[in-house]
Amino acid sequence: MRPLPRVVIVGAGFGGLQCARKLAGEPVDVTIIDRQNYHLFTPLLYQVASCLLNPSEITAPVRKIFRDSKNVRYRQGDVVDVDFTKQQVRLADGTTLEYDELVLSTGSTNNYYGNHEVQRRALGLKDLAQALQLRNHVLECFEKAAEATDPKARRRLLTFCIIGGGPTGVEFSGALAELVRLVLPHEYPEFRPSDVRIMLLEGGDRLIPLFKRRLSRYTLRELQQLGVDVRTDTLVASADARGVVLKDGAEIETASIVWTAGVQPAVVPHHPGLTRSSRHDRIAVDDHLRILGAQHAWGIGDVAAAPDRRGQPLPMLSPPAMQEGRYVARQILNGGTRKRFHYFDKGIMATIGRRAAVAQIGPIQLTGFLGWMTWLVVHLYYLIGFENRLRVILRWSWYYLRLDRPVRAIIEERPPRPELGSPGMGTGAAGL
Amino acid sequence: MRPLPRVVIVGAGFGGLQCARKLAGEPVDVTIIDRQNYHLFTPLLYQVASCLLNPSEITAPVRKIFRDSKNVRYRQGDVVDVDFTKQQVRLADGTTLEYDELVLSTGSTNNYYGNHEVQRRALGLKDLAQALQLRNHVLECFEKAAEATDPKARRRLLTFCIIGGGPTGVEFSGALAELVRLVLPHEYPEFRPSDVRIMLLEGGDRLIPLFKRRLSRYTLRELQQLGVDVRTDTLVASADARGVVLKDGAEIETASIVWTAGVQPAVVPHHPGLTRSSRHDRIAVDDHLRILGAQHAWGIGDVAAAPDRRGQPLPMLSPPAMQEGRYVARQILNGGTRKRFHYFDKGIMATIGRRAAVAQIGPIQLTGFLGWMTWLVVHLYYLIGFENRLRVILRWSWYYLRLDRPVRAIIEERPPRPELGSPGMGTGAAGL
Repeated sequence: MRPLPRVVIVGAGFGGLQCARKLAGEPVDVTIIDRQNYHLFTPLLYQVASCLLNPSEITAPVRKIFRDSKNVRYRQGDVVDVDFTKQQVRLADGTTLEYDELVLSTGSTNNYYGNHEVQRRALGLKDLAQALQLRNHVLECFEKAAEATDPKARRRLLTFCIIGGGPTGVEFSGALAELVRLVLPHEYPEFRPSDVRIMLLEGGDRLIPLFKRRLSRYTLRELQQLGVDVRTDTLVASADARGVVLKDGAEIETASIVWTAGVQPAVVPHHPGLTRSSRHDRIAVDDHLRILGAQHAWGIGDVAAAPDRRGQPLPMLSPPAMQEGRYVARQILNGGTRKRFHYFDKGIMATIGRRAAVAQIGPIQLTGFLGWMTWLVVHLYYLIGFENRLRVILRWSWYYLRLDRPVRAIIEERPPRPELGSPGMGTGAAGL
Repeated sequence: MRPLPRVVIVGAGFGGLQCARKLAGEPVDVTIIDRQNYHLFTPLLYQVASCLLNPSEITAPVRKIFRDSKNVRYRQGDVVDVDFTKQQVRLADGTTLEYDELVLSTGSTNNYYGNHEVQRRALGLKDLAQALQLRNHVLECFEKAAEATDPKARRRLLTFCIIGGGPTGVEFSGALAELVRLVLPHEYPEFRPSDVRIMLLEGGDRLIPLFKRRLSRYTLRELQQLGVDVRTDTLVASADARGVVLKDGAEIETASIVWTAGVQPAVVPHHPGLTRSSRHDRIAVDDHLRILGAQHAWGIGDVAAAPDRRGQPLPMLSPPAMQEGRYVARQILNGGTRKRFHYFDKGIMATIGRRAAVAQIGPIQLTGFLGWMTWLVVHLYYLIGFENRLRVILRWSWYYLRLDRPVRAIIEERPPRPELGSPGMGTGAAGL
């Protein structure tokens, strides 16, 4: 009996997960490698950062997802190199895994465009550890501000500066504004809600530029109504110990710089044979999602620049990643003879607070409550796991009814890890 | 108008919280100081460590608890010294707070009885950070074991050694055994459940010595049925890179040493005038809970040795702490003229897995399902916050029905904290 083809999927994000699900139960031997033992539902990450959801509500352990699929395994690991000739991936712990087909779906990380000062001082919102850090940081700023006696120091602690007017920046500013205006005033007699200043800085001339202008304008109005100080055409030059320095020389004093202004592909290996697309440095793939210059290797999601019908790279969003994952799974099962990848655009959406959202579905543009309901249904639909859906609905209902943000314990830094001897127990925190 | 008397409560545990609740709405000005911004429901901490509950489900933000009490404030801080003469407490950040009445309710921490080797290598289960660390550690051991090729290394990774047969050790071993036997086998095809070994080491001749012998025997049988390897009369001498070294010279190879064998009072100040009780080093208080050698200062809960009717110190448990807190509040409101503190013993209980528990209420001894139902009702009753109760019931029901442990993401160590300038944003992790 011939052994089953070994498919190695690197990354358990939206693309990798869909690919593995499609391959589950098929005559292939699948290994998913990820540094994290869970799939993260990134669209709701900002709700973890704004004290509404628990990490467990937007994560699903990879092993649990595939517990009934005998041909899908999980391997915790950090892929540090790929040998496309020998068809091997190498992990940080030194082990190598051989593959017959490789799916690279390693996603993306923050991109600070070489601005080291900003990188050193900014908080990110791209993975769970960052979201938790941001949540703890915001709550600590409130505590420090409550203790502060110097008005200037207090103002700095209560100024939150979000950089980047894309969906993440918009969603986090809206959620933070609601946390501040609706939930916290009752609990901090030490200051007034109006002492808190939330600024959203966008380099371009409008928010959420992927959307139609009308929706950008609506988003701006909604955020302003929530009290967010939105500044378009505002470029950040640097950051220092006091706060953010703008291109025009002005300085904003803040203890909280949140960076949502750029992402870059989390390309695993520095591989000489690998072509990068000119834009965003993503891995170049052909219109069948085959990695250029490699055999039996596929690139999907944020890390790869899948071309649309006109040859332009598809945006770094979860819907293309998921469709690409399913497409590659079918390619692998059919021996790669199918027609080229075609992305079916189901639309894009973003939410602004408790009852407003924007959705753009083909020619249809939704705003307000209808947009929000659409956003809600779509997000619940895609959230993995029945139990998580139920819990998130409960959380949201509770929040709606009680205006409460329940997840507000400031979890202190881990105590120093005890020394437990030889097998290195560290969580490889280094980047994929 | 005379200013209201200033009551400073140090520690938002069971004792401090009950005291503050009793003082809420009364003509006093209350400040609760705690390093953490939340009250922690410690009896369910082992369920966080065993992947069943989220931190937010067993924590309640102090500010939220007192949001409707205008005379109760919260101050995040680390009390490093008390001047009983000047009636001041000093915080780690240098500020001092004056008090008219002081309530010391700082609880307890792990006690390793001077065994530095064990302390260096053991995991604790006494606060939230430790519980989360333990959870992450257990899950990582499974992942490492799944990857391990050397059978000896794998065995070591799958051996969990819990030291201390008190309620915490019993409850955690039981919960861990269930996690291993019922939940994980489906997800780790790499090893058999029988490869996992859970050992509970107790120095004395029986488990839970605070309970009647019959209940100790029942607990032993139940744990053995869950597959826990219980060793009584087993003293730990030391720990090294391989594992635990016993007094008789035997060595147990393990990557996981969990210490639940001792607690000590978390005495804040090294104060020359302060008397310590001979046993356990707790602060000596009189039968009105006044700290000996100090004026207008009260000691409650684990940190103080409140005497029972026969002059013996009450056990370090939450029920005495809560009653002491309420008693001291009444003392403060009545000017300290009430009769001596009398502890009303409502009983003690511990749980062993999903459907067994022991409860000892006066002459009544409950075991099995009835004990478990009693345990459940009592714990839900004392859990702070309606919403948390609801969520915990949901979690438990889900677990009952589905044998699922949902909280299983290994959260990686925080990314390095960005440098956000002057006002030190570190969470003081140093011990209260």
